Amino acid sequence: MERRFEYELQTLRQRLLAMGALAETMIHKGVKALVDRDETLVEAVLAHEEEMDLLCIEIDDRCLTLMALRQPMASDLRFLVAGIKINSDLERIGDQAVSIALRARSLITQPQVKPLIDIPRMAQLAEGMVHNSLDAFVQRDPELARSVIESDDAVDELRDQVFRELITYMMGDPTTIPRALNLMLVSRHLERIADHATNIAEDVIYIVRGEDVRERGDKELLKGLRRPDSKIR
Amino acid sequence: MERRFEYELQTLRQRLLAMGALAETMIHKGVKALVDRDETLVEAVLAHEEEMDLLCIEIDDRCLTLMALRQPMASDLRFLVAGIKINSDLERIGDQAVSIALRARSLITQPQVKPLIDIPRMAQLAEGMVHNSLDAFVQRDPELARSVIESDDAVDELRDQVFRELITYMMGDPTTIPRALNLMLVSRHLERIADHATNIAEDVIYIVRGEDVRERGDKELLKGLRRPDSKIR
Repeated sequence: MERRFEYELQTLRQRLLAMGALAETMIHKGVKALVDRDETLVEAVLAHEEEMDLLCIEIDDRCLTLMALRQPMASDLRFLVAGIKINSDLERIGDQAVSIALRARSLITQPQVKPLIDIPRMAQLAEGMVHNSLDAFVQRDPELARSVIESDDAVDELRDQVFRELITYMMGDPTTIPRALNLMLVSRHLERIADHATNIAEDVIYIVRGEDVRERGDKELLKGLRRPDSKIR
Repeated sequence: MERRFEYELQTLRQRLLAMGALAETMIHKGVKALVDRDETLVEAVLAHEEEMDLLCIEIDDRCLTLMALRQPMASDLRFLVAGIKINSDLERIGDQAVSIALRARSLITQPQVKPLIDIPRMAQLAEGMVHNSLDAFVQRDPELARSVIESDDAVDELRDQVFRELITYMMGDPTTIPRALNLMLVSRHLERIADHATNIAEDVIYIVRGEDVRERGDKELLKGLRRPDSKIR
């Protein structure tokens, strides 16, 4: 039973990694669709959405089944609860990538406002954060998780820069306003992706934190389940 | 032990309701700060944030403690997992209300772009959705939950209207662009609040759905734990 449970936890970790990889792919293709003005990449992102939904349902299922059938104690329970939260963050990252692809679809039929430099940079950062947050999860590495949380500021700074620059374009030529607005909203989607990666990193810290606390099932120790970092941002 | 567990679940429900009420108050004051151009309401929202954070930690604690100590079976487990998710949605609603208050703080020092009509209407709808999603949760009422999910379209339509109207202002007078953008982002915050209320309503449907399935702990029945509605939006 113990080995079987360990095996099931390992499978769950792998499925969450697969979902993370899919989320990264969707972000990458969504932004590439915009930069390369490539409609086929828009369709590729939309095609990934169903795969994402199926993975999300499967992972929720796995977590709940393990909770109900295995009645895990504190550290595994914390891991499974984090699994459910991470799953939901990854699904929402997928939703944001879809929103980026849809904005790309509308933007590539119109003249370009400006060459895109900061948005691809934001995308690269956000993808890296998603990747590292999942790596931190699998390796139970709180330092890597902390570095993800720290990257969030760089994403916010880039978003401010995107906004400032686009406002200048809008004020200089009001006909660019609708297109510039769409680009601003793309940068907001990327910002939200980075926020979700930050949430995942916070969950990793919360899982790892409790691990040196031995589980005795008494109320005092269960306080170790608390999430002291939950409001970093 | 059974009665004690029932009592603890009841307390958890009440704390989630208190958190919902706080979230509603924060939305209401945030938008009122903007409409009445009242700086003291901005401060009131910011002051609520800490209270929100403490409630969030307390509720996470309660859910995890009950999961670990009581080893609940399927229906109670589903309820506790939903509790953790609802808690996280309510916390993020609070974050959005804080963002609205901060935009209000910046906007009320500048001349008004236009009288605000649709934004207060969006706020009223979003508050109602938060309220009803929590009511649906406490009363285990899937019909009320479904009505919340349906209201989401009305919020999205209002946001489109806000965007269209503000684009006209921006194009007519480019000096309004930074202020109009801030108002657009307020409407995006309200849209996100409505999305979180929709998530809560989906969790309610997911809790209630499994309740007529008797818990036998076997894998077949655990499939009832699945969330078929998780991708409505």
